Amino acid sequence: MSTSLPLHPAAAATLQCWHQMIAAGDLSRLPELLHPQAVFRSPMAFTPYESAAAVNLILNTVVRVFEDFAYHRELASTDGTDVVLEFSARVGDRQLKGIDMIRFDEAGLITDFEVMIRPMSGLQALGEEMGRRLAPQLAAMKGRPA
Amino acid sequence: MSTSLPLHPAAAATLQCWHQMIAAGDLSRLPELLHPQAVFRSPMAFTPYESAAAVNLILNTVVRVFEDFAYHRELASTDGTDVVLEFSARVGDRQLKGIDMIRFDEAGLITDFEVMIRPMSGLQALGEEMGRRLAPQLAAMKGRPA
Repeated sequence: MSTSLPLHPAAAATLQCWHQMIAAGDLSRLPELLHPQAVFRSPMAFTPYESAAAVNLILNTVVRVFEDFAYHRELASTDGTDVVLEFSARVGDRQLKGIDMIRFDEAGLITDFEVMIRPMSGLQALGEEMGRRLAPQLAAMKGRPA
Repeated sequence: MSTSLPLHPAAAATLQCWHQMIAAGDLSRLPELLHPQAVFRSPMAFTPYESAAAVNLILNTVVRVFEDFAYHRELASTDGTDVVLEFSARVGDRQLKGIDMIRFDEAGLITDFEVMIRPMSGLQALGEEMGRRLAPQLAAMKGRPA
């Protein structure tokens, strides 16, 4: 699907790599795709996590928490710099829907990765599991209030 | 912004009308834009609300709950049938971000309206306020589990 979106070629290449990594369950190439000041906007907390290291840690963790993960609709902005990827997943016995809203720079690097989740029960299940796995590391990485 | 999205003309006209209604704070024309079997997918509950009357009631209520509401990025699917509208708003002292993910049929009618909200604190504040205003009506309107 991603190749038909009206994205800048560099952004389309990054998105294609992202899909290949998700399909393989292996995000080892993710650091190459992240801008050094990449920001992660969590579905749980308002304050963003501001560093490529934090984005990499969070995304590597969440892909291990989600079960039955599948992408569905893809949408792009007309300027070719932003995509929304709709997904469904399960955390324990909680079904959830979500979106990844991703911004790319001119070199195709990911500068902003925002996630939203519904419903409340799915968001709570995800938050509890992410907290168990990541709370100490994320507290140390947390950026300034935005 | 909406006119530049690669939407079907009928969908683009509906989206333009939606933006005009939001800007005016008056959704009185909304019933004309909804498919009779339109579905609302809430950020709080997994089970959708399945009727134009429910979609109309919920959207008319939420626009009165949100303060400092503003739309930001707009994204579209390549088949011209779906949009994502990013927004920011406030409920009481809680800042939040969200998206409206809207699907249109060939006549431009809204068939599916899905909302996601972050962070957790904003979703909770919205849920409490919506519950206060709508719980009795929505319980009566709730569709079958999906």
